[in-house]
Amino acid sequence: MPPPPLITLTTDFGDDSTWAAQMKGVILGIAPEAVVIDLTHGVPPHDVSAGAYLLESGVDAFPRGTIHVAVVDPGVGTSRRPVVIRTESFLLVGPDNGILARALRRHPVRGAWLLDATHYRAQSVSPTFEGRDVFAPAAAWLARGTDPSRFGPEIDGLVGLTRSEPPPAVPPGRFRVRVVHVDRFGNAVLDVAAEGLAEWRDPSSGLPRLRAATGAGVTVDAVLRTFADGVPGVPFLLVNSAGYVEVSMREDSAARHLGLKVGDELELSFAG
Amino acid sequence: MPPPPLITLTTDFGDDSTWAAQMKGVILGIAPEAVVIDLTHGVPPHDVSAGAYLLESGVDAFPRGTIHVAVVDPGVGTSRRPVVIRTESFLLVGPDNGILARALRRHPVRGAWLLDATHYRAQSVSPTFEGRDVFAPAAAWLARGTDPSRFGPEIDGLVGLTRSEPPPAVPPGRFRVRVVHVDRFGNAVLDVAAEGLAEWRDPSSGLPRLRAATGAGVTVDAVLRTFADGVPGVPFLLVNSAGYVEVSMREDSAARHLGLKVGDELELSFAG
Amino acid sequence: MPPPPLITLTTDFGDDSTWAAQMKGVILGIAPEAVVIDLTHGVPPHDVSAGAYLLESGVDAFPRGTIHVAVVDPGVGTSRRPVVIRTESFLLVGPDNGILARALRRHPVRGAWLLDATHYRAQSVSPTFEGRDVFAPAAAWLARGTDPSRFGPEIDGLVGLTRSEPPPAVPPGRFRVRVVHVDRFGNAVLDVAAEGLAEWRDPSSGLPRLRAATGAGVTVDAVLRTFADGVPGVPFLLVNSAGYVEVSMREDSAARHLGLKVGDELELSFAG
Repeated sequence: MPPPPLITLTTDFGDDSTWAAQMKGVILGIAPEAVVIDLTHGVPPHDVSAGAYLLESGVDAFPRGTIHVAVVDPGVGTSRRPVVIRTESFLLVGPDNGILARALRRHPVRGAWLLDATHYRAQSVSPTFEGRDVFAPAAAWLARGTDPSRFGPEIDGLVGLTRSEPPPAVPPGRFRVRVVHVDRFGNAVLDVAAEGLAEWRDPSSGLPRLRAATGAGVTVDAVLRTFADGVPGVPFLLVNSAGYVEVSMREDSAARHLGLKVGDELELSFAG
Repeated sequence: MPPPPLITLTTDFGDDSTWAAQMKGVILGIAPEAVVIDLTHGVPPHDVSAGAYLLESGVDAFPRGTIHVAVVDPGVGTSRRPVVIRTESFLLVGPDNGILARALRRHPVRGAWLLDATHYRAQSVSPTFEGRDVFAPAAAWLARGTDPSRFGPEIDGLVGLTRSEPPPAVPPGRFRVRVVHVDRFGNAVLDVAAEGLAEWRDPSSGLPRLRAATGAGVTVDAVLRTFADGVPGVPFLLVNSAGYVEVSMREDSAARHLGLKVGDELELSFAG
Repeated sequence: MPPPPLITLTTDFGDDSTWAAQMKGVILGIAPEAVVIDLTHGVPPHDVSAGAYLLESGVDAFPRGTIHVAVVDPGVGTSRRPVVIRTESFLLVGPDNGILARALRRHPVRGAWLLDATHYRAQSVSPTFEGRDVFAPAAAWLARGTDPSRFGPEIDGLVGLTRSEPPPAVPPGRFRVRVVHVDRFGNAVLDVAAEGLAEWRDPSSGLPRLRAATGAGVTVDAVLRTFADGVPGVPFLLVNSAGYVEVSMREDSAARHLGLKVGDELELSFAG
């Protein structure tokens, strides 16, 4: 028996609405054998950039063929395009507003299609909830094996991230980098993946040699392997489990300690 | 192979307890093939009225035959009646305290039974957690095909909503309406379904013509189709994806902007 | 057809990350037939003691053979031991830092093994996320029937709870007890199980006779059966659905009313 098809959901719906559940109800009505997993519904409201980071952070843990639906969609009901994207590893479903862009960083696009065939939508589409009426049905039909080309014409020119993504090319000495997400523990994730810093890697530890100058006038210059290696009260840098550089503290909130929030910029430089 | 039975849960348990999980453990112990979906556990504590709105907002997205369990139950362990209710579309399980009332607005009752057969409860029932010991087992037995009449005697006189529900009949010119829920985006959902305003519909847009006078002295008089049609900073009215009228703003919180919270009253009038 | 294997997750990951979902993705990649249930991800960050209470509160609702994974792990990436523990009723997977200790209070250990076989881990283990790379794969292999002894050598000397757990022996007259968890409703759960107070039980009501002196100078001396038996505005004691004594109020927050938070101590005495 083949494994059941897997669908994940990433939204800014929070946990005090039934929107995510409504998407699951629609999916299970069409594809009862599907298994639907919440990637997260805790994207800050309307924050396409943080949503794109969170979606990317999750996709590689799932088996090949998983269908990832992401709905952070301030333009719902307008002309932004609903799309399905195929890569070697997974399918993406959502609005073409940048929410899907970062998940494609390590997974090249093999095809992208507009979701406009009315046959694969709800009979009546709410102008405020295409998650339920467009994206959930599309994911369910994909789970049943429908080919993406059935949903509409192939398209290109997908929207990139809304702000300074993809990460700026690294200049020789230093560069500015944005806080893209602050997690529950107060780790401030920077918009730079460690794999882009290969030339700066310390051969003995394997960690990049970095220094971050924060707006608060504090310089963070230790790069540690894990949280418990930190000295209590002293912020440090870390390559997190999604491969991004973050500012962290041991059992404390670096974001609160340093006054960092999403969108703030830090200056990163090579620490020799 | 028939699709697995679907059970949803709606509670005010939040996400920092194991109560919802305990209900799932009990259900899966009795009906291992069931699929249990969280409708929401984010009902404000003890808020039967908001819970009733949230339950109604979710039920229509689920396939026929789904079993919806709702537990917002400040009277747990007292004489309020545990019930199961059958409609053409779904089964409801919960306390008869109004939490189930709004989901019945568009789905007439086909039968209601008391849940008092000890055979279908936990051996020992906690006086503070009938969700686990009464409602979860009942839902699981329903999922296994047990007829609702096996649980206890048929009953009538179900409790309506605790406050001014169902919505007041619409007088010719104007009426007062309560905020029944404020969602994560700050939309303030009013206790009036758009289908009750059919006579006020603008023939060209299909939207109702409404004006809302808020307590803050602000009048909201645009009725828009979707959020992105709004002017930044200016509140407007919208028919939301559950069919209710709400006060909204574009990528901003109308509730915060206007100082609206659950239970506040607004005056709605026909906008000509 | 045997019921699908059940795995639960208890973490301090919150709902605004994809960490819990990544664990599920890994599990379903190895054991596609497993059903994964969130026990809770709302353990306060790094709070091993509250996590241990929450884990214990949930385990007895699940069928025999369930695999419970708990990850509250401030020492991730250091030398604390990753373990799997077998009892008559369930398997536990997590770090040996006390998070698993309280679930063992009523369920004696039948065996404990180190999780160090690289064959049952991710190929590359993140030093900050063993939940995904060590504990999730182990749970999935257990779900597939792998014997715990395959993961590594049998061990003993498991870590107990980090603070004053297990509960202090009850002296004849009075004892101090810690607040171990405050739930969403403001109930302050005390670190004492009612079963340890059998000698103090009132024969007519079956409830223990207790009095609690709070730091605020307030004495709480009613022990009630359920919330709705309370007088509005007056705190009381209750044996909760997990069998622990808690300070509660009727539709109000006892913790806020009395200024109680996790770690605070109360003096409990026999109320005659």
